[in-house]
Amino acid sequence: MKIRVGHRTIEGRAISYDPSKKALMILDQRLLPEEVRFIECKTVDDVAGAIKDMAVRGAPAIGIAAVYGIALGIMNGMDAERASEILQATRPTAKDLFHAIDYMLENLPTYDYRVDGAIELAAKYMEDIINRCSKIGVYGAEIIKDGYNILTHCNAGALATVDYGTALAPMRIAWRQGKRFFVYVDETRPRLQGAKLTAWELMCEGIPHAIIVDNAAGYYMWKQDIDLVITGADRVTRNGDAANKIGTYEKAVVARENGIPFYIAIPMSTYDPTALSGNEIPIEERNEDEVLYIDGKRIAPMNSNAKNPAFDIIPAKYISGYITEYGIVSPHEISSLYSKYYDS
Amino acid sequence: MKIRVGHRTIEGRAISYDPSKKALMILDQRLLPEEVRFIECKTVDDVAGAIKDMAVRGAPAIGIAAVYGIALGIMNGMDAERASEILQATRPTAKDLFHAIDYMLENLPTYDYRVDGAIELAAKYMEDIINRCSKIGVYGAEIIKDGYNILTHCNAGALATVDYGTALAPMRIAWRQGKRFFVYVDETRPRLQGAKLTAWELMCEGIPHAIIVDNAAGYYMWKQDIDLVITGADRVTRNGDAANKIGTYEKAVVARENGIPFYIAIPMSTYDPTALSGNEIPIEERNEDEVLYIDGKRIAPMNSNAKNPAFDIIPAKYISGYITEYGIVSPHEISSLYSKYYDS
Repeated sequence: MKIRVGHRTIEGRAISYDPSKKALMILDQRLLPEEVRFIECKTVDDVAGAIKDMAVRGAPAIGIAAVYGIALGIMNGMDAERASEILQATRPTAKDLFHAIDYMLENLPTYDYRVDGAIELAAKYMEDIINRCSKIGVYGAEIIKDGYNILTHCNAGALATVDYGTALAPMRIAWRQGKRFFVYVDETRPRLQGAKLTAWELMCEGIPHAIIVDNAAGYYMWKQDIDLVITGADRVTRNGDAANKIGTYEKAVVARENGIPFYIAIPMSTYDPTALSGNEIPIEERNEDEVLYIDGKRIAPMNSNAKNPAFDIIPAKYISGYITEYGIVSPHEISSLYSKYYDS
Repeated sequence: MKIRVGHRTIEGRAISYDPSKKALMILDQRLLPEEVRFIECKTVDDVAGAIKDMAVRGAPAIGIAAVYGIALGIMNGMDAERASEILQATRPTAKDLFHAIDYMLENLPTYDYRVDGAIELAAKYMEDIINRCSKIGVYGAEIIKDGYNILTHCNAGALATVDYGTALAPMRIAWRQGKRFFVYVDETRPRLQGAKLTAWELMCEGIPHAIIVDNAAGYYMWKQDIDLVITGADRVTRNGDAANKIGTYEKAVVARENGIPFYIAIPMSTYDPTALSGNEIPIEERNEDEVLYIDGKRIAPMNSNAKNPAFDIIPAKYISGYITEYGIVSPHEISSLYSKYYDS
């Protein structure tokens, strides 16, 4: 990913290990887009703090921070199990976190701890995720045509996956291939990840874009100003339904109503073979203050309440296809694609 | 309308003339929901200032302020034409403003200026609008059933029409009839009229409600948690299309997709017999800073732009019916309803 610092633009990653400092450098997402600052993590507690305080967000990025957190713990003479416990206590519902910890505990015995083996193992985990996102980008770039206007919702970018991103990976690759297009960025209330994070990533890459209020996406689809919608997803079920950031369902319905292709970009780790359909996915209800306050200022009457569902379900019928690291498939093919690579 | 001031709730209006003070009292909407304060206007310049600075908003309310503005000008020895010019210069695109001014200039000659005739004429204009809104409330209340969950977008309330409102009139009347229901209030980015104004009106009336981000409306419709949608409109065309606050189109599409009735409440003054369809309605593009800044704080990267369409078009096929002061009609009946009462 490109990172703009002042007037310079550098090639970098949202998380990287600096061997000279023996430190994990984590881009502090809470400060974006105002400020680009990396947190220097030298201990497992430093990493746990960065996860807990949401300096790093996005399930794959949290997993990557965690594997390095264990490696740092081992380098500092800590037991891998103890380091895992500290990391596990940070965000109890993040699936990737547990997956990452399990990966380290399973594979560490085959590595030599004392000669940077743990760091090598963490790097391997990270490179695998980045490699998958890069492939999503290559497959997804095929459906982006020169001159397109693309709509995206929330942030499924490099910040969430350390590099490339999921929904943003096809845009990054297509742009580097020389295709020219424009991106409409839903601001994505309540937490504004579109306005704050996706716009920042596109700005760094030099990809032209405009932020719109979530309400305006439908208007541009009605006007046929949008040629393609690409979002990420938090979970995909066997029948091809998806769960994603609140508002994705509305965009998908309006896209189909206007004959606009609607794609979801995911690595196969997002597919949940245990869930039959979206109806089985519990929707997290977050604190109402995320709606009632913006930057600490209340926007609503003191006696009014709010409801704040964080995700919604996009039924398979609204989804044109899934862009994965194994290619693009229709929603009803996603379960067999998974079986092909993961059932043995 | 009910107005809560501190711990007291009074029956009042967003605009009213106080004969003892010889002043027009205008509820300052810019301060809501934090503070209830009336601006005392004694001159045409005071009223023009309140319109220009958006202390009063909503087309019918602006018209009412204007007729009283002319009356105040005359009371202070000003020529009606000169007063009209001052008011006309406030907000050049507000149709109701010109309609209100024309009404005064046409009818004033039949009144005696010196014995409060101008104030009487202004009062007549205001009472006519309130009366129409009250009838919208009575007709609209018929489709609200006990136990309903109702969704509304933006503020089509008493603040915009001095009393009752359009979309909120059926809810006010139904509530007074003893029906019990719940209202989902879209916060309505970018200007947050739902969170700030509609929630405040419902809070004053004691009607239970929750503010939601605009993104969440689709989720609740998908869950079948919403039984009825009622919004206002800014303009309605001969084929039954409507223009309304940005985001209304998305809600209408998702409502139809889920089999939920979608009604628009308007007085017939909103119907435009000169426009054949919604395609003829120009969409105002407002300043991008409304999107990029919230309460003075920038939410987006400095190098990112925004697009900010203020309205969208709701094609007639998504509209279950229009709630008017003459009854409820389907979109294809709106032009004949207009002809019945206004063509002679």
